[in-house]
Amino acid sequence: MEYTKPLARLIECFQKLPSIGPKTAARLALYIVKMSENEVANFSNALLEAKTKISYCETCFNMSCSNPCEICSDNQRNKGLICVVAETKDLMAIEKTNEYQGVYHVLQGLISPIDGIGPEDIRIKELLYRITNEDIKEVILALNPSVEGEATSLYLNKLLKPFRIRITRIAFGLPMGSELEYVDEMTLTKALEGRVEIE
Amino acid sequence: MEYTKPLARLIECFQKLPSIGPKTAARLALYIVKMSENEVANFSNALLEAKTKISYCETCFNMSCSNPCEICSDNQRNKGLICVVAETKDLMAIEKTNEYQGVYHVLQGLISPIDGIGPEDIRIKELLYRITNEDIKEVILALNPSVEGEATSLYLNKLLKPFRIRITRIAFGLPMGSELEYVDEMTLTKALEGRVEIE
Repeated sequence: MEYTKPLARLIECFQKLPSIGPKTAARLALYIVKMSENEVANFSNALLEAKTKISYCETCFNMSCSNPCEICSDNQRNKGLICVVAETKDLMAIEKTNEYQGVYHVLQGLISPIDGIGPEDIRIKELLYRITNEDIKEVILALNPSVEGEATSLYLNKLLKPFRIRITRIAFGLPMGSELEYVDEMTLTKALEGRVEIE
Repeated sequence: MEYTKPLARLIECFQKLPSIGPKTAARLALYIVKMSENEVANFSNALLEAKTKISYCETCFNMSCSNPCEICSDNQRNKGLICVVAETKDLMAIEKTNEYQGVYHVLQGLISPIDGIGPEDIRIKELLYRITNEDIKEVILALNPSVEGEATSLYLNKLLKPFRIRITRIAFGLPMGSELEYVDEMTLTKALEGRVEIE
C-alpha cells in the first residue's frame, strides 16, 4: 500500500527541506495529521506570511520585514564597523552573543568555483559600495573555516586592502570546553598559528 | 536583535514538531524564506489538505481519506489475519516489506500507566469487537519491544486467550547485518529466548 495521497504530498513537501530525509518527513507528516485543526491552520499561514512579508535589507542584505532592516536603522549601532557573514543564520548566531555592536553585511553565499559561484554572484560589489560611500573604520570577516569561507576571506582581504581600513577576521582555535587531546589536527594547527601574547 | 516577527512565528511552528529543536527550526524557517513562492504556497496547502482530508478508518483506525481504508477494502487481503500495531507509522513500516497480506488494527497508542494511558484509552475494545464479529484466525502483535509495548502485548494476550484464535508476536532478536559482539545484552537475551529449531 502507498501513502494516501494528501499524506504523500505533505511528506514530499517536508522532504524538500534541508536535513529532512524520507523517514523524518513521514513522521512529521503523520504528526501534522494528529495536530489540532487550529494549529495546522496557523502553521499553514505562518509559512505564507514568512514568504510574503520577509524580504532583504537593501543595505546589508539581512532578511527583514523592513528596509533598512532593524539593525541598519538602529542608531545605537556603530555604523563604522561592518561584520561580513555568508548567511542570515550566521548573523543570528553572532547577535545571540549580545557582544557585537556594529552592523553587518550578508554576502548571501560564498565563493565556490566547484558550484559555479564566483565573486560576482554574491553581494561583494554592494560591500564595496558601502566601503566607498560610508565612513567605515573596520571590516570583520566572519566566514566559516571551510574551503569556500577561506577562499572568500582571502579574496575580500585582497580586494579591501587598497581602502586602508582595518580588516580583521574572527579567531579560529579550540572551542570552549573542548579538550586538546580530542581536537582535530587542523583546528590545533589554526590554534597554534593564531596564538596571542599573554598580557 | 530578535528574529523578525513572521520568521519567529514560523520557527515556533516548526519547533512544535517532533525531533525539531530550536536550531533546526531556525534553519528550516530560513530555508522557507529562500524557497520560491510557488513551493511555499504548495507546502502551505499540503498542510491544510492533509489535515482536512485525512481521517481514520472506522474498522482498523489506519489514517486514510476513505472509510473503510484502502487496506480494509482490498479483497486480495486475508481478512482472517489481523496485525496489531501501535501507530500508522508502524503499519507503513510493515507495508514496506511487501510481505504481509493480512489486514491491520491500529491501537493509536500503547498502555502506559506513567502517562495515564490505560487499556480504555486505546482502540482495544474495537479490536475485541472485530474478533467477536469477524472470522479472525490469527492476531499478530507487532508492538515495539519497549516497556509500553511489552505491557500492551501481555495485556492483549491475556484478553484474547479465551477466543481460541492463534495469537503470535513478531520476533525480537539480532537485526540483520548486526554483529553479535556489539549487540546489547537485552537484545541478545531476547534472541536466546526466541531461538528456533533449525529445520
